[in-house]
Parts: sequence; C-alpha cells; structure tokens
Amino acid sequence: MKVETEIAELIHRLERCRQKIDAALDEWMPKEDEIPSVLHKAMRYSLFAGGKRLRPFLVLECCRVVGGDEDKALPAACAVEVLHTYTLVHDDLPSMDNDDFRRGKPTCHKVFGEGIAVLCGDALQTFAFELLATKLPERGVPAEVALKCVAVLAKAAGSRWLVGGQALDITEQAQGYSDRSPEKVLLIHERKTAALMQACCVIGGLIGNATEEQLVALNDFGYWLGLAFQITDDILDEIGDPEKLGKSVGKDKQQKKLTYPMVFGLEKSRQMAAEAVERAIEALLIFGNEANTLKALVRFILERQL
Amino acid sequence: MKVETEIAELIHRLERCRQKIDAALDEWMPKEDEIPSVLHKAMRYSLFAGGKRLRPFLVLECCRVVGGDEDKALPAACAVEVLHTYTLVHDDLPSMDNDDFRRGKPTCHKVFGEGIAVLCGDALQTFAFELLATKLPERGVPAEVALKCVAVLAKAAGSRWLVGGQALDITEQAQGYSDRSPEKVLLIHERKTAALMQACCVIGGLIGNATEEQLVALNDFGYWLGLAFQITDDILDEIGDPEKLGKSVGKDKQQKKLTYPMVFGLEKSRQMAAEAVERAIEALLIFGNEANTLKALVRFILERQL
Repeated sequence: MKVETEIAELIHRLERCRQKIDAALDEWMPKEDEIPSVLHKAMRYSLFAGGKRLRPFLVLECCRVVGGDEDKALPAACAVEVLHTYTLVHDDLPSMDNDDFRRGKPTCHKVFGEGIAVLCGDALQTFAFELLATKLPERGVPAEVALKCVAVLAKAAGSRWLVGGQALDITEQAQGYSDRSPEKVLLIHERKTAALMQACCVIGGLIGNATEEQLVALNDFGYWLGLAFQITDDILDEIGDPEKLGKSVGKDKQQKKLTYPMVFGLEKSRQMAAEAVERAIEALLIFGNEANTLKALVRFILERQL
Repeated sequence: MKVETEIAELIHRLERCRQKIDAALDEWMPKEDEIPSVLHKAMRYSLFAGGKRLRPFLVLECCRVVGGDEDKALPAACAVEVLHTYTLVHDDLPSMDNDDFRRGKPTCHKVFGEGIAVLCGDALQTFAFELLATKLPERGVPAEVALKCVAVLAKAAGSRWLVGGQALDITEQAQGYSDRSPEKVLLIHERKTAALMQACCVIGGLIGNATEEQLVALNDFGYWLGLAFQITDDILDEIGDPEKLGKSVGKDKQQKKLTYPMVFGLEKSRQMAAEAVERAIEALLIFGNEANTLKALVRFILERQL
C-alpha cells in the first residue's frame, strides 16, 4: 500500500473510532439532568470537548491486530478516554498547571468552579473503572480478562506512573525546574504520557486474547509511541504553527517547563523522536501487515498531524 | 450476652480489625521513598492519620456474618478505607470545605500543598481499585466476585452517589443553603455517607458468598447504619463535647450547613437516629446471633462512642 493510501485509511479509521466512542460515551454517561445536574454537565462538558480519541483508538486497534473483536473492547476504549479526561481536568486546575483554555474552550474549573472541577475529575476516574467492571462483561469479555484490564489501568494511572508523573512535574515546577537533566525529563515523560498509552495497547491485547509474546510487543509499542508522541508535542510547542495546531504554543518555554528541546536541543530531540518511532515500528514487526494502520499512526504522529 | 460484654467484644474486634488493616495497608502501599517520594508521603500521611477503620470493619464483619472467611475480604476492607481517605483529602481542599485540621492533625494540603493533595486523593482512588483487582484474586476470591466488588465500589463512589453528594453539598453551600427542606438533607446524606457504607456491607457479603436475600439485607443494613451514623454525627456537631470527640464542634452551624438538627430540630433528629438504628437492627434479623457484633456496632454508634 502506498503511504498516501495508508494515511487515508488511517484517517478513515480514526474518524470511525471517534464516532463510535462518542456514541457509546453518550449512551453510557449519566445524562445532564440526572442529580446532581451540575456535576453531570461538567463531566459531559469535559468529555465532549473535541478530543481526538487517540487512546481509545489504540485500544481498538491493538485488539484487532491480535485477531480480537474490537466491538468487545469498546467499553475499555471508552474507559481509557474517560480516565485521560479526568487527568486533563485536574491538570488544568489553578493548583496545578492553571490553564484557562483547552482546545480553545474554557477549562472545566473556569466554567463550573474549582470545587466542581475537582469532583468532576474524581467522578470521571470512578466512571472509568465502572465501565470496565460493568460493560466489558455485558459484551462477553470473561471476568478474568476484565479484572486484568482494571489492574492494568489502575497500575498505569496510579501513584507510580501517571499521577506520579504529574506529581514530579509540579514538584520540579515549584523548584523552578532547576534539575534539567536528561534523566529527569525522561522520568516525567515516561510517566505522564507513555504509561497510559502502554496500558491502552495492553488492554486492547488482553481483550483480543493476545499471547504473552504479543502482549510484550504491544507494551513495547505503547512505550515508544508514547515517547514519540510526547517528544513531538514538546517540539511543536517550541516551533509549531498555532493556527495549524489549534492551540497556543510557546507555553512550555514561558513556564521554563522540562521539555525535550529544552534539555536536548531541537536537533537532538528530532533525532530522538525519529528513533522512538523506529522502535515503535520494530515492536509491531511480529504482527505483519495487520499492523499497517498502527504503523501509519506512528508516522503520522511524527509528522505532526496529530 | 449482656450489653457490657457485647460492647467489650465489639471494641476488641474493632481494635483487631484496625491492626489488621493498618498492617496490610503498610505492606501494600508504595513506600515513602518510592518515586515520587512526596506523593507517597502524602498518601501515607493521609491514610495513617488515626482513622477508626469503621468501613473496613463493615466489610470484614459482613463477610463473616454470611459465613465467609474474613481474611479473603482483607484487600477489599483496605480498598474501602483507601477510597474513603481519598474523599476526605479532597473534601478538605480549599475549593471545597477548606479544612485546616482533621483529627487534630493538619490536613494533607496544609502539609504538602494543594496540588499534591489533589494528586494524593487521585492516586488513593486509583489504588483502591488496584487493590480490588490485584489482591482479591491472590486471596482466592474468584474473578467474577472481585469484578462485582469493583462495580459496587465504583457505583457507590461515583457521580450519582458519593461524589454526587459532595457536589450537591458544595452547590447548596454556594447558594447559602437557602433550600433547607427535609428532602434536600436526605438527598445529600444518603449520598455522602450511606452509599459507601452500603457498598462496604454488600462487598463483604459478596466475598463471603452471600445469597441474594442476604445481600438485600446487608444493603438495607448499610443504608440505615449510614443514616444513623450521619444523623448522630450532625447531632454531635451541635451538642458534643469537643474533648471527648477529639475534634472541634459547632462548625456545621457556623457554616450554616444542612444538618438534621438544623432542618428537623434536635429532638426530632434524635428520634430519627433511633428509628434508623431500629431499621438497621431489623435488617440483621435473618442472620440471628451471628449478627450480634454488628448489632452492638449500631447501638454503639447511636450512643455516640464512635
């Protein structure tokens, strides 16, 4: 397949995934008029704020790539997006990154107040686990597998990984990012971005009944994809076109955040992103042509379309 | 058994439960020196702040009362306490109840800062689900049962119940508690207190392999126990002896909070608490003498020892 066709196929699949996820979330989420209405409005406002649904896509594609039925994985795909959304709502809080806008819209606490934003994030996290525990069995996923999904998501989202990364970041921020070592930036990025992407890939694999070897490959893939994604994100904040990206740039630099370009320089960061992409694609080798969409996704990320 | 003996037996069991829970939590929680250290310190600071471990006790006793092995339920008993602790950490935040002290110690955000306190609560919630998903199977609890425990806890802790109650409370607070109707105070208390206690009882029952009839009874028991607990708590804030209680009183009144005494008056509130206790004890009838400790617990709560 030519690269152009692959990209077209990828965009088609991404769009189909987005529609599926949004329809399922709309069905499964409490409605806006359910008590307490303000909380459910805040949850829906945050969830339907125009996300690309990249993490759900990873769950569905990794399920498919091992020969699984991606419809069975739909509740898990929704769960990872709900969990990701909770982390965004809390990251934006005044006591954290203090962001007033996300994807061009006022952040949750700007619209609903800080207290409701904290509770909105809390309830979204709970809802992610509720989806795994209630909706996966309804789709015929065995309890053992659903329980493993809960364990994988909880571990990735927990104090050692996702939340741990944010804790490291705000601790470093409070110290004016005085430690600008390569180890530190990796420590944070592995946790803040790669851990959840790895969990998405492994969860998709588990539901698709992957072998141990396949799960290891998916875990590696998720790791390198996550790093490639984060390094590219850092580079774009440095050199990206705000109009093309749909978000403001230069904020990391302004806040002296610990990013790849600032620790390694732009050229070296580009090399590192390209290397992460290579490693991600290598991890997919055992899946042959079945992994073409995932491969296209990785390249697409590097070429900064996502 | 005489009432004095029952109370002595109850106190003995409560103390044994506290020791078991604290030892297990100490073993299972990430250590203080694990990265990120500040987050793990905050989590342990909040968890080991002298809680009575009432909710874990409910899990263990409800497992035992249906003939189950309470050691199997230990991870779930820890999980409900971890989840309860997360809600306390977030409730105390400046954007919520803005409390500087809890049980005589500075609250999490006073010691570690607001950002870390948000993340600490987040990570504690995640850890509660991780415990259920990883430690219950290790103790021989079938995956189907462990997954049901995840579902029950997630539902009770979610936007319709526990977090929903807090959302209603801060919304009413923002409006100066202008709606002081009986319906409103019940709506909040059912959610903020009763829902998690019900979940504790049902989870204990599930792990103890309870019948459907027993689960219904445990669910009812948890509901009335939760209401009795909350009404008594409200009364104590109005008339309690701060020294005996180990906490300040009169805060609800000062903040014009929606409490039973303020909506129904003191005398009627006492009647309602006594009625809730009666209903809780009625729900235990099907368990015969096996439920003596739980019965003693309910009376103990009404007589404001807990």
